[in-house]
Amino acid sequence: MRFKGALSATLKVKRMASFEMIRTVAGMQAQAESWQRGGLRIALVPTMGALHAGHLRLVEEARRIGEKVLVSIFVNPAQFAPHEDFASYPRQEAADLEKLAPLGVDAVFAPSAEEMYPVGFATRVAVGGPSEGLETDFRPHFFGGVATVVTKLFTACRPHVAVFGEKDYQQFLVVRRLSADLGLGVAIHGVPTLREPDGLALSSRNAYLLANERRTAPRLQAEMRGAAEAIRAGKAIDGALAGAAVALADAGFRVDYLALRNAETLAPVADAAKEPLRLLAAAWLGRTRLIDNIAV
Amino acid sequence: MRFKGALSATLKVKRMASFEMIRTVAGMQAQAESWQRGGLRIALVPTMGALHAGHLRLVEEARRIGEKVLVSIFVNPAQFAPHEDFASYPRQEAADLEKLAPLGVDAVFAPSAEEMYPVGFATRVAVGGPSEGLETDFRPHFFGGVATVVTKLFTACRPHVAVFGEKDYQQFLVVRRLSADLGLGVAIHGVPTLREPDGLALSSRNAYLLANERRTAPRLQAEMRGAAEAIRAGKAIDGALAGAAVALADAGFRVDYLALRNAETLAPVADAAKEPLRLLAAAWLGRTRLIDNIAV
Repeated sequence: MRFKGALSATLKVKRMASFEMIRTVAGMQAQAESWQRGGLRIALVPTMGALHAGHLRLVEEARRIGEKVLVSIFVNPAQFAPHEDFASYPRQEAADLEKLAPLGVDAVFAPSAEEMYPVGFATRVAVGGPSEGLETDFRPHFFGGVATVVTKLFTACRPHVAVFGEKDYQQFLVVRRLSADLGLGVAIHGVPTLREPDGLALSSRNAYLLANERRTAPRLQAEMRGAAEAIRAGKAIDGALAGAAVALADAGFRVDYLALRNAETLAPVADAAKEPLRLLAAAWLGRTRLIDNIAV
Repeated sequence: MRFKGALSATLKVKRMASFEMIRTVAGMQAQAESWQRGGLRIALVPTMGALHAGHLRLVEEARRIGEKVLVSIFVNPAQFAPHEDFASYPRQEAADLEKLAPLGVDAVFAPSAEEMYPVGFATRVAVGGPSEGLETDFRPHFFGGVATVVTKLFTACRPHVAVFGEKDYQQFLVVRRLSADLGLGVAIHGVPTLREPDGLALSSRNAYLLANERRTAPRLQAEMRGAAEAIRAGKAIDGALAGAAVALADAGFRVDYLALRNAETLAPVADAAKEPLRLLAAAWLGRTRLIDNIAV
């Protein structure tokens, strides 16, 4: 099926938008193979939909490094635990397609859960290494679900490169490890986090925030930045992190973790003077869980 | 590197044998991609070496259904538990290559363990469904190791079809499930078990048998055949299996399992009259573990 010209009139885009809408794995593989036979470099942007400017930035980057640009939209049940927000996760496919229309996307792969996980499906992919700790301490099912669906998206879409946002930094490293380990032949390209003017990292889950929570949310980034600067200035790591954690709690956050790690392996820091460092955090505001990370 | 003409003089094969010896994943992928660009259908025979006539039969089948024939030789450490026979598993690469030389093989992929599992490797593939029970009850690590290495062999070799012996029937079904689930695009082709004239299924591990054990070994197949015939003739399943198990114990076997299962799913049999049935067994003779299976 071809998606054509569903642009809202207010966009005033002259050319008609047109890309393939693909719903099946077999259809996706056939399209990818056809592109590959033509020697075309395929860039994939995997998403769960609910697209915001951060996603669109990933698509622009894919456009820059690939000759064919694929966006996948799939809310992956395997990466949600039963008590999490799978049912309420924002789904707005028509709006997503309108946002993609002016960006020169060649195809959108949007399979159903039954297409990705048919009856009898029984395989799981698990990554150790960078998936240990941090998110896994609080969402133990998460990276298994991510690794399984990413493997399936890669074998369906056959991309040469896949573009991931660094907002999900641990996920970015897990996927890089996965692709190398399984020899999937997909280069993993990270794109720096896009932020609101007040510093809040763009996220589909920001839509859950109540008005007062939205005003508080940028404090997460501000306190992380303060701690990073203090560490760079020579302050003891434990003290800097504890100070930021207390400030976040005072502001109304419930902090899952705020941790300094090796930026390549996510292992605990052995010698801060000699390693690339990344500060990572997850914290709740009311019923919304925010994550963020910055280089130190 | 090209392997050329290492045929023993006694073989008196006129044409010089010649195939590519490939030691790296990158080299294998490059060769496979070159064949794929030529539109050639690649058939892979995955082995752990110690080749016997059963393996050579698989290669013949690959020759029949593929345009390029690849044989992999890799003793996969991930599918052995620490107490098992990884260290003593027979390794005889030179002899294996001589056996393959007259068969029209196009390439042999024989990577090192370090090439397949480099430092930092952290990914595991796990298959449920057909891997539950039977071998898993006695070798719980086994199919995880198989699924991981098969995924890696498929992404390195990029075959259109892979040929597996039905001697490892549960493995055959697990790999078929794996390939479908992950969308690896590899058809799994099973080949009936090759047997010695006395009925013993060919296996590299038969080399472990002492002379008296070798004389006893065909009883496994004989008792299984007897039980299958009794079941076909209408005898109660439990009684037929118990009789065979007692006979095997009397003959000196230590039986791990002797079980009738659904031949497609390996689930326990719900209605023997309406399902395809397979009888599967594993049993020890001294220090050697034999497995076998037959259609019922």
